[in-house]
Amino acid sequence: MSTICAISTPSGIGGIAVVRISGPDAISACSKVFVPHRKEHALEQRATHTLTFGQIVNPATHEVIDEVVVMLYRAPHSFTGEDVVEISCHGSQYIQQELLHLLTGQCGLRMAERGEFTRRAFANGRMDLSQAEAVADLIAAQNAAAHRLALGQMKGSVSRTLDLLRDQLLHLSTLLELELDFSEEDVSFADRTELLELARRTRNEVSRLADTFRTGQALRGGIPVAIIGETNAGKSTLLNHLLGDDRAIVSDVHGTTRDVVEDTILVEGQLVRFIDTAGIRETSDTVEHLGIERTYQRIQHSHVVLWVIDGRRLDDAERVEACARDAVEVYRHIYPYLNEQKVIVVVNKVDLVNTARLQHHLPTFQGALSQAIQHEGLSAPTLHYIAISAKHGQGLDQLHQALVNATRLPQLAQGDVIVTNQRHYDALVEARTALTHVIDGLDCQLTADLVAEDLRQAIDALNSILGQGITSQDTLNNIFHNFCIGK
Amino acid sequence: MSTICAISTPSGIGGIAVVRISGPDAISACSKVFVPHRKEHALEQRATHTLTFGQIVNPATHEVIDEVVVMLYRAPHSFTGEDVVEISCHGSQYIQQELLHLLTGQCGLRMAERGEFTRRAFANGRMDLSQAEAVADLIAAQNAAAHRLALGQMKGSVSRTLDLLRDQLLHLSTLLELELDFSEEDVSFADRTELLELARRTRNEVSRLADTFRTGQALRGGIPVAIIGETNAGKSTLLNHLLGDDRAIVSDVHGTTRDVVEDTILVEGQLVRFIDTAGIRETSDTVEHLGIERTYQRIQHSHVVLWVIDGRRLDDAERVEACARDAVEVYRHIYPYLNEQKVIVVVNKVDLVNTARLQHHLPTFQGALSQAIQHEGLSAPTLHYIAISAKHGQGLDQLHQALVNATRLPQLAQGDVIVTNQRHYDALVEARTALTHVIDGLDCQLTADLVAEDLRQAIDALNSILGQGITSQDTLNNIFHNFCIGK
Repeated sequence: MSTICAISTPSGIGGIAVVRISGPDAISACSKVFVPHRKEHALEQRATHTLTFGQIVNPATHEVIDEVVVMLYRAPHSFTGEDVVEISCHGSQYIQQELLHLLTGQCGLRMAERGEFTRRAFANGRMDLSQAEAVADLIAAQNAAAHRLALGQMKGSVSRTLDLLRDQLLHLSTLLELELDFSEEDVSFADRTELLELARRTRNEVSRLADTFRTGQALRGGIPVAIIGETNAGKSTLLNHLLGDDRAIVSDVHGTTRDVVEDTILVEGQLVRFIDTAGIRETSDTVEHLGIERTYQRIQHSHVVLWVIDGRRLDDAERVEACARDAVEVYRHIYPYLNEQKVIVVVNKVDLVNTARLQHHLPTFQGALSQAIQHEGLSAPTLHYIAISAKHGQGLDQLHQALVNATRLPQLAQGDVIVTNQRHYDALVEARTALTHVIDGLDCQLTADLVAEDLRQAIDALNSILGQGITSQDTLNNIFHNFCIGK
Repeated sequence: MSTICAISTPSGIGGIAVVRISGPDAISACSKVFVPHRKEHALEQRATHTLTFGQIVNPATHEVIDEVVVMLYRAPHSFTGEDVVEISCHGSQYIQQELLHLLTGQCGLRMAERGEFTRRAFANGRMDLSQAEAVADLIAAQNAAAHRLALGQMKGSVSRTLDLLRDQLLHLSTLLELELDFSEEDVSFADRTELLELARRTRNEVSRLADTFRTGQALRGGIPVAIIGETNAGKSTLLNHLLGDDRAIVSDVHGTTRDVVEDTILVEGQLVRFIDTAGIRETSDTVEHLGIERTYQRIQHSHVVLWVIDGRRLDDAERVEACARDAVEVYRHIYPYLNEQKVIVVVNKVDLVNTARLQHHLPTFQGALSQAIQHEGLSAPTLHYIAISAKHGQGLDQLHQALVNATRLPQLAQGDVIVTNQRHYDALVEARTALTHVIDGLDCQLTADLVAEDLRQAIDALNSILGQGITSQDTLNNIFHNFCIGK
């Protein structure tokens, strides 16, 4: 095993920076460039978990690079499980670079790859894969909920739940194998009704865990709220109002890939992600357009749909009818993508409309829309109507309250396990499918060996979350590629 | 004395971040939120220079914030000389903020001001002021020379030199006071010739040290090279060529205030700072223009002047004369600001000029310029002429070599003390002036009490560099304001 090094603190200039070294040669390599302040404090002689003051000196030129403190962790009592040395130096970029230069040059160390320290912790059994993945999530966490989930997962909450489920499946497997061993004697040792009951219960638990992914994603990345409506309905102004002063709070969250305009704000401590989906209405003419599919997918995965309508169109009877027709057209397009979303119809620009006429025409519009939707053979969700003027700030309090209600997630109890990771979700879905096959097999009196195969698949899927039995280096590479250097 | 805390690592997201706490309550305050992994590892019981693994827990909500390692340094064996606790946490911004929030809230700590940790180190006698100032320089150092100077100063090279000088002055002072004590008896105890000799020697040493400032500044910020010449002479193209691919190397250096366009490159390991001074020629008409004074100051402080001339003007005899006249005009303006600068005349755009004619006219121009300069009663420095085509890269190698020669600084021997700090330079100049008065006083047989007063001033000036006898908080505030938070 090679010995690796990297700067573990954020890049840039600061008071101090920390360079981390891990591997069998960590202590001897560092000793080549570290001269302790007291002669008797040679690193080789120091106990684990001690701090030693001294200088980094280039052994070739005898030039002093910096005065530093060295933190020593002897294997296996370290993050990686290997000997680890951390050098706390002054935070100049020059010093950081010179130090790395010495370590990779004179000391013969290798620069660590992304996540390589955590990968070693996993390889050395210091944590399972779901815990290792949580380290990256923890560092990326930007709000309390995401942070709590990542920390819980790092401390093993997901692992423990999966361990329990796997134990149940292994028990099931043992019973089936018992039957298999004695199959020639045509004796069913395992009571198939009991097996079926156990398989069903386990599948339900796997399924419930998989279903937490929707919540987990929302907690981690914000609850997705899709904003739809015609371009001139004032979507942008509305979005700007909603984001308003809160934008600063989450300015650091941005910077992820944006193929659709997205912005996040904290609504009563809850991260909400607004997705501006331009041009639904225009798509009635250009359904073929490729990009629009993505908009529909965003709607499909959203928790709430804000449907913005230009209030001026409710100003006279004739336009109301046309407006309802257009609205039905939009609804027809998004209908296939609606599942559990709450839909809030925002009638905007009411400052430009005569209040009396609006009060008269709005119910007409609502009625016409409901009727038309039924006429099309589509079922209508409960549509909440809110009249606002984004420009004048009118009705925004009600909209805010409606958003708070609509984006409320199920209350989490301490210790609730929530899946936040796409890889884990995929594995859980795979396990669920395999378990469904197990149940069908048991139901159809399939032979034990066929059922056992499906069961093995379910167990493998759960194991893959914990990192057991993963032989593909590519999978591990993919996982640790999301890490930062130095962790 | 209050207990302070701050994030000491660079801002941003990274593998780990370090929060530093210093003061009498450092250990007890941290214990309020730190739960060690092993019960017997309570911070209060831990020895100095140890690492302790555990969790940060909000004592009010019992929520776990992070798993951390705590570094413990007990007074006086710490950077500040006080009890110091450093918490190495995961590098998410959320965790860093929550941790600071807990420390300043529940633990009752105060956020540290810029440089406050180092200021405490100074206040507690862990370092003198020149060493404390070097900490900021060390963190800001971007090249080997600046780094070496800062590290040397931090380790006390400047302090030791000043201590020696001050000892000499104190000896002088004792001799003078002896004379003063017996003044009524009209006896000169001290041999004034000997005193004079000692004062002269000390002044020369102070003077020599002050003179290193020019080199010190160049090493720290780059050797200043002023580029002058008409706008259409191709200064920008030349500058871009000179900066060329090397620009990336120093891209981090920028970002300081730029009232004049400046760019730095490493020329054979030596930082060179190019100062583009626009519109010298135009100033022959608008000398009154305010801004131009700054350009002249930049020229005054530069080590090298690159004077760019449009080679096309040397294409025919008549234009050569006009060109020489204009050149004299420029020279007349910059003349008062020339001291030791090397002046390189760069004849640019030679690709657009007939080579034969250029070879004929260039000596004419040189002659005309020299003659005119003498005629104006000005002395001419040795002008080095280099013909180039910035656009085609012609002659750039020669220019590069000329620059290397012109920017070569005196070779520094290991242990050479170089002053890099403006405040130190000012104090040294003050000491030099005071010592000149001392020498004059001794020369003129002034009474000992008058001479002693000047001598006291010289000693005070040296003391101020070390931070002794500085009573003004403003001075200290100014010094530590240049630090980053957390150092």
